[in-house]
Amino acid sequence: MGRNDFSEPFLLINFKTYLEATGKRAVDLSRKIEQVAQSNDVRVGVAPQFCDIAQVATQVQIPVFAQHIDPIVPGANTGHVLAESVRAAGGSGTLINHSERTLKLVDIEKSVGHAREAGLSTVVCAGTSTLAAAVALTRPDMVAIEPPELIGSGRAVSKERPEVVSDSVRRVRAVNPDVRILCGAGITTGEDVYAALKLGAQGVLVASGVVKAQKPEDVLVDFCKGFRKYNL
Amino acid sequence: MGRNDFSEPFLLINFKTYLEATGKRAVDLSRKIEQVAQSNDVRVGVAPQFCDIAQVATQVQIPVFAQHIDPIVPGANTGHVLAESVRAAGGSGTLINHSERTLKLVDIEKSVGHAREAGLSTVVCAGTSTLAAAVALTRPDMVAIEPPELIGSGRAVSKERPEVVSDSVRRVRAVNPDVRILCGAGITTGEDVYAALKLGAQGVLVASGVVKAQKPEDVLVDFCKGFRKYNL
Amino acid sequence: MGRNDFSEPFLLINFKTYLEATGKRAVDLSRKIEQVAQSNDVRVGVAPQFCDIAQVATQVQIPVFAQHIDPIVPGANTGHVLAESVRAAGGSGTLINHSERTLKLVDIEKSVGHAREAGLSTVVCAGTSTLAAAVALTRPDMVAIEPPELIGSGRAVSKERPEVVSDSVRRVRAVNPDVRILCGAGITTGEDVYAALKLGAQGVLVASGVVKAQKPEDVLVDFCKGFRKYNL
Amino acid sequence: MGRNDFSEPFLLINFKTYLEATGKRAVDLSRKIEQVAQSNDVRVGVAPQFCDIAQVATQVQIPVFAQHIDPIVPGANTGHVLAESVRAAGGSGTLINHSERTLKLVDIEKSVGHAREAGLSTVVCAGTSTLAAAVALTRPDMVAIEPPELIGSGRAVSKERPEVVSDSVRRVRAVNPDVRILCGAGITTGEDVYAALKLGAQGVLVASGVVKAQKPEDVLVDFCKGFRKYNL
Repeated sequence: MGRNDFSEPFLLINFKTYLEATGKRAVDLSRKIEQVAQSNDVRVGVAPQFCDIAQVATQVQIPVFAQHIDPIVPGANTGHVLAESVRAAGGSGTLINHSERTLKLVDIEKSVGHAREAGLSTVVCAGTSTLAAAVALTRPDMVAIEPPELIGSGRAVSKERPEVVSDSVRRVRAVNPDVRILCGAGITTGEDVYAALKLGAQGVLVASGVVKAQKPEDVLVDFCKGFRKYNL
Repeated sequence: MGRNDFSEPFLLINFKTYLEATGKRAVDLSRKIEQVAQSNDVRVGVAPQFCDIAQVATQVQIPVFAQHIDPIVPGANTGHVLAESVRAAGGSGTLINHSERTLKLVDIEKSVGHAREAGLSTVVCAGTSTLAAAVALTRPDMVAIEPPELIGSGRAVSKERPEVVSDSVRRVRAVNPDVRILCGAGITTGEDVYAALKLGAQGVLVASGVVKAQKPEDVLVDFCKGFRKYNL
Repeated sequence: MGRNDFSEPFLLINFKTYLEATGKRAVDLSRKIEQVAQSNDVRVGVAPQFCDIAQVATQVQIPVFAQHIDPIVPGANTGHVLAESVRAAGGSGTLINHSERTLKLVDIEKSVGHAREAGLSTVVCAGTSTLAAAVALTRPDMVAIEPPELIGSGRAVSKERPEVVSDSVRRVRAVNPDVRILCGAGITTGEDVYAALKLGAQGVLVASGVVKAQKPEDVLVDFCKGFRKYNL
Repeated sequence: MGRNDFSEPFLLINFKTYLEATGKRAVDLSRKIEQVAQSNDVRVGVAPQFCDIAQVATQVQIPVFAQHIDPIVPGANTGHVLAESVRAAGGSGTLINHSERTLKLVDIEKSVGHAREAGLSTVVCAGTSTLAAAVALTRPDMVAIEPPELIGSGRAVSKERPEVVSDSVRRVRAVNPDVRILCGAGITTGEDVYAALKLGAQGVLVASGVVKAQKPEDVLVDFCKGFRKYNL
């Protein structure tokens, strides 16, 4: 299991801008996540804030993602996030078009291209099955389906809106047989994870369910049970 | 001269998203800048990309600025730049509203407030004397006047449009007697720096003039001559 | 009282995108407003949607405002709002930077300039006293102070947050002695109007308080009492 | 030939914010376009600025399009363009995501839905064949492929980049067999129109080629020759 191992099923943990996962706490949380993942033989990645990517990447071996890149090339772009900069800091991939950082359609295609050229894997997010298929056309490595109304709700997409996941899987597959499909929003238990995998997802995207948990390790151990149950 | 020493006159070097100042090259350039600044007793800061702030801050003692922060508080803000995150990475301050990353007026006021609460010094940019006075009302630590049409042009604002600098100084002073005033755009020589200080600026903001130079050290040494000439 | 009469005190009614004030209903409401204004000798203007400006302007003599213009000049700007187009349709002025359509600082200055060149009066909105002073520096015809949290609340800024109005008046006056100052947010009664004028406002900006009222005429008649009480 | 006749092939003329097509000149140009279209039995529509839709719609019988709508529903949305407002003014349809007014992916899907509910036909623009297929998934009435680098260039997409048109037709058809496909950018002659139709487009989108022409009627007559040549 190394920095570019995204083999199935994949668990990506988005740190957002939570103070619980900022600075040293981003490094500490990443270490805990790596330990649970190693003990349970689960593929996992973390997406800390830009300023924390370099520190996290030196402290753990699991893949480190940016939460966003800008659709730019090197040059006079003060205050923007360059794919090459994420890569130089030790990043392995990036989220694109998260519902909290949505992009213009034209910039999604550009960002996927820039990321690939810089050697970053891409996870493009979409909130509906139609948009999941649309972003799959830009040929990212992974598509993540996340209905925005369930994000942070504690009500798992895989339980509350299973048809969104299964429709997305079907519609994405119809236009792109290769892309990996994640799902997310409201996932807090191993059963939620298991339900997602049963619906055809090849992994899950989670944030507050882990980051804001009293004991993130316990949540992660429970998630791993969901992965194992599916693999039996 | 330490991490929070912005005493006059101040030289702030914006690395933008130039490859010449990305990753290890951001650290190397910062070290060179620090050496010249120490040898010449000039106050200097650097503004690398977000992903490079932590590494640069561990390698140099001079102030490290972000190039931008988002007008957010900790929470569910995937892909945004939190003031507290910049601070935790070792940042001392931040640019706000650079002409390549302009903000809504309402977000300038919010960003200045968030930065202050997080312990970051603020340099708010403006392209005209009217807007320089407008942003000075939000009470940042510094205002930087930069006519966008001269940025990266090699034609120094202090030589080409001296009246923009002097008008800005006058108009900013009329509404805020305390804020430090920088100027920038097109500055490439010590004479440009000297001209800026003569017009009432208390420092300069520079980017390509240093970062894209064949020998940044030589440009910096020349800048220092401008500072010394003014101090005589 | 004609199309360019904004003499004091001024009442500007923003139709937003309410169905109650769309299409023919925008024309009908404008006629009612004009009738009450004439009967009570109060200066009033209306701000319908872009598509309704021309029809409203042919049916009433009171000033008609756009709700926004884009910071553009004539040319290849598909889907944008050109100041000259508003003027050609019979518009007399425009709102700029309303809290539901906030602009980048740099675009506020441009929009005020473009509006003036096209012959449109300008009402630039701001949500705090600091920002009210900041926009006053761009020299619009009027500044409208509207705390966003009170908009549509039914709790009048002039009663709930009188210090915001009086501080804004003081701070705006300090940088621009000529600009007219309106206030708005939550105003629904003549007493709210009277309180606003007592605090130093020269007019009020109102939307749902009139547009969503069961009988807009009755609200307007009550507003006129507030104006008269102040003028006694 | 009436207000909702978009039968093949279709010619849509975008007035952008050209002064040559603002206010009375928008009405005059629309009349000329209608006359040529009637004489030559060609289906044509015009897309004037928002403020001109109502006047144009009362003066001509051909379909009138907005150049953009915002992804909003009726309510407190000052300065935005409501689909219902375009419809109430006499509009029959709207452009969405023109390269000069690009939208977030999520807002394209919303805008197509809002337009349909308000009774507006939709023409969603895209600059590449990948994005043409992506927007076709949102099920608009028409997709318009326009490589941004050729817009206003006088070099016709159908001559300079025929593979973009044919690839777009193929990729759009693979995901949506029903949507009408237009192409545009740089079209100035009947031969350009003919080439577009030969490549599989069912119509063309044009702007400066007509609006900025010395004699728009002559250009239109030439376009009609292209349509006839194809229909032989």
